[in-house]
Amino acid sequence: MSILVVGSVAFDTIKSKYGERHKILGGAATYFALAASYFTKVRVIAVVGDDFGAEQESVLTSHGVDIRGIERAKGKTFHWGGEYGDNLNEAQTKFTDLNVFANFQPNIPAAYNDSEYLFLANIQPTLQKQVRDAMPKVKLVGGDTMNYWINNTRPELLETLKGIDILLINDTEAKMLTSDSSVPRAANKILEMGPRALVIKHGEYGATIFFKDGSYGFGVKAFRAPALPIEEVFDPTGAGDSFGGGFMGYLASQKEVTREVLKHAMFYGGVMGSFAVERFGPERLQNLTRQEIDERFNMFRSLTHLD
Amino acid sequence: MSILVVGSVAFDTIKSKYGERHKILGGAATYFALAASYFTKVRVIAVVGDDFGAEQESVLTSHGVDIRGIERAKGKTFHWGGEYGDNLNEAQTKFTDLNVFANFQPNIPAAYNDSEYLFLANIQPTLQKQVRDAMPKVKLVGGDTMNYWINNTRPELLETLKGIDILLINDTEAKMLTSDSSVPRAANKILEMGPRALVIKHGEYGATIFFKDGSYGFGVKAFRAPALPIEEVFDPTGAGDSFGGGFMGYLASQKEVTREVLKHAMFYGGVMGSFAVERFGPERLQNLTRQEIDERFNMFRSLTHLD
Repeated sequence: MSILVVGSVAFDTIKSKYGERHKILGGAATYFALAASYFTKVRVIAVVGDDFGAEQESVLTSHGVDIRGIERAKGKTFHWGGEYGDNLNEAQTKFTDLNVFANFQPNIPAAYNDSEYLFLANIQPTLQKQVRDAMPKVKLVGGDTMNYWINNTRPELLETLKGIDILLINDTEAKMLTSDSSVPRAANKILEMGPRALVIKHGEYGATIFFKDGSYGFGVKAFRAPALPIEEVFDPTGAGDSFGGGFMGYLASQKEVTREVLKHAMFYGGVMGSFAVERFGPERLQNLTRQEIDERFNMFRSLTHLD
Repeated sequence: MSILVVGSVAFDTIKSKYGERHKILGGAATYFALAASYFTKVRVIAVVGDDFGAEQESVLTSHGVDIRGIERAKGKTFHWGGEYGDNLNEAQTKFTDLNVFANFQPNIPAAYNDSEYLFLANIQPTLQKQVRDAMPKVKLVGGDTMNYWINNTRPELLETLKGIDILLINDTEAKMLTSDSSVPRAANKILEMGPRALVIKHGEYGATIFFKDGSYGFGVKAFRAPALPIEEVFDPTGAGDSFGGGFMGYLASQKEVTREVLKHAMFYGGVMGSFAVERFGPERLQNLTRQEIDERFNMFRSLTHLD
């Protein structure tokens, strides 16, 4: 089944201890789309400027990603610059040139109307809600957000959350959204805000999914997938979005979203996140095989599997 | 089989958002011994002062813990005071009154000589080595250490590590010991220092065991056990030592230390750590049943088990 992602397609300038890259392809929707493309058909809604060329397009189209929803606007493409120090979980932002992204107004091409899965990547919550409301027939809606929206557009975000089935955020965002320092308690509070399930990403420690149906407390209402202990993290940019792409892409590839399918999706999310950080930008996500993905899935499994 | 633990038996004065306790029983060897006592026979070597009475003794002896190795010295028992803020992974130390612990010289009672397992809890590395060298016939040696010894007695610690089979430390200590910000890389370096296996405890995110035999890299040479998402962490004091007690105690209860047994031990370590934090001090560890332990083991399993 096809999945539609709305979010940023951007240029990134990144520095880590392993080197630097200038103006490489980035953006949440890019990482998400590439990761999801190994599982299902992906469609993208985004905006780029006139510095976005055939080379960048082909990164997506060569993976079968439908980019008819990527609008060309006059001006430059969103450009983010960041640097990673020893703490790979947090980038130091050097600059954020929103450029054409500042006036992004998502337009849904008619050809996208039959999308069955929708992912609202990290953009202004009111825009997320507009897209969600324009797609009443989708089977499942995933979403992301970030500290900026939590702090500055909280009422709008709370409205948006009501239309999201599965929210994917990290520990810091979960704590910030609920003003609660306990992750499991924060999870319970977020599940009262709308989502039926909540994925909290723990960076190098994996991710946990919390289900709404009953207190997960000491039962089986939560599930934790590990992250692979990776010795050389070249560039953590996009790891969370790649997790989202693997997670949602796998869901969309299955007939039904059962509890067991969600657990497997957690592992596939971790797998795609682990590939993303092995090279700069989305380099590694561009040349994977499904066999490599499944081999790594088995490594993840053996990392936690008790006979 | 019996396990001998050498470490601190102390009084703790603890404050967390759930309340406070004055001069309750604490110390690494106490948590370790109580947790391990549910799996095997435990013997303790420690020193206490004349303020340590029958009430404290009976906490240990009522769990079958052999305390003949707990020496009575003139003076007061080691007393630690700490407070937990929002970050439950780090205590703010208010005071550390070493008292009789300052001159601790471990003496091994003759009756302890046939101990098959040995755990060197967090004490001065030279003392750890003395005990280890005095017990040449033990089957397996586990050990712990902390930032203070890493920074101030590094050469001595490196000597001690050569005699430890399984080292149990946390992320911060692993990074400090190797001056490496990457946990998996730090793990590889530590496995060159002596231990055949290394358990790195990640607090609320669980723990990972790294095995020496070959690069764990992208294979199955590492194993990760989760921690239970606990909403109300009353008091994290002793969680790591309780993990150690569950881990080593389970090992000592098994005929052979196979890879599969080590994996189960990781889960039992997490289980005992999760009980420890539910109440103040070692309160919860004092009144468990093996059935409760096994039920929680199954919860841990279902938290990560993929069919």
